[in-house]
Amino acid sequence: MSEKNRVLAANSAFYAAFLNQDFAKMNEIWSEREDVTVIHPGYSVLQGRDNVLASWRQILSSVHSPDIHFCNATAYVNGKVAYVICHETLTSNTLIATNIFSLENDSWKLLHHQAGPAPDLIDETPSGNVH
Amino acid sequence: MSEKNRVLAANSAFYAAFLNQDFAKMNEIWSEREDVTVIHPGYSVLQGRDNVLASWRQILSSVHSPDIHFCNATAYVNGKVAYVICHETLTSNTLIATNIFSLENDSWKLLHHQAGPAPDLIDETPSGNVH
Repeated sequence: MSEKNRVLAANSAFYAAFLNQDFAKMNEIWSEREDVTVIHPGYSVLQGRDNVLASWRQILSSVHSPDIHFCNATAYVNGKVAYVICHETLTSNTLIATNIFSLENDSWKLLHHQAGPAPDLIDETPSGNVH
Repeated sequence: MSEKNRVLAANSAFYAAFLNQDFAKMNEIWSEREDVTVIHPGYSVLQGRDNVLASWRQILSSVHSPDIHFCNATAYVNGKVAYVICHETLTSNTLIATNIFSLENDSWKLLHHQAGPAPDLIDETPSGNVH
């Protein structure tokens, strides 16, 4: 399997853990590094593994945990760091995400996730502010 | 200068080019790689150097090019790839960005930029959808 495909498999595992509200898998997917970060849509950044995982525990344990799916994933590999850009489709809105991974003990682990609003996939009219 | 500080200097140069509507500098700041990407707030991803730089040419040549400043920048360095998370403050809104850089010929060059809505810095109430 190419490194790109391995990164895409890690990205897919992230969304499977999210959809399945599987905190144990989510915990495995994130890097063991202390300086991981996450930007949930509309929020500021959370820094540090404890803070990041606490946010996932809260999201995944909520009855409002979304019916989330991803598509259009593209991986960009640069040695031991890679990032994936993909769309996230939820019941009522579409997001777009940047997911940064690092190769640790031969596994691609998540270092950072940012998701923000995107146009619906059938309609490229922007849903937010332009720079 | 530490690598973190060099990455932060590259990040600062990106926002200076943006604020000063300096397309030549913006062109220099981006990696020469063909597979660079950008996610402007509310939009889908643009892939490829020509598309990414064309979007910047359009933004920087507009009379509506924003009065943009950044703050709270933190750099995360992983060998020859690094990313910076920072807030962007504009006249009427606050964004948060992930900027990914690669070390090319001893210069940190921008590979990817995503910005999306964030709470105002004095108010951590979210301004967008929660995951």
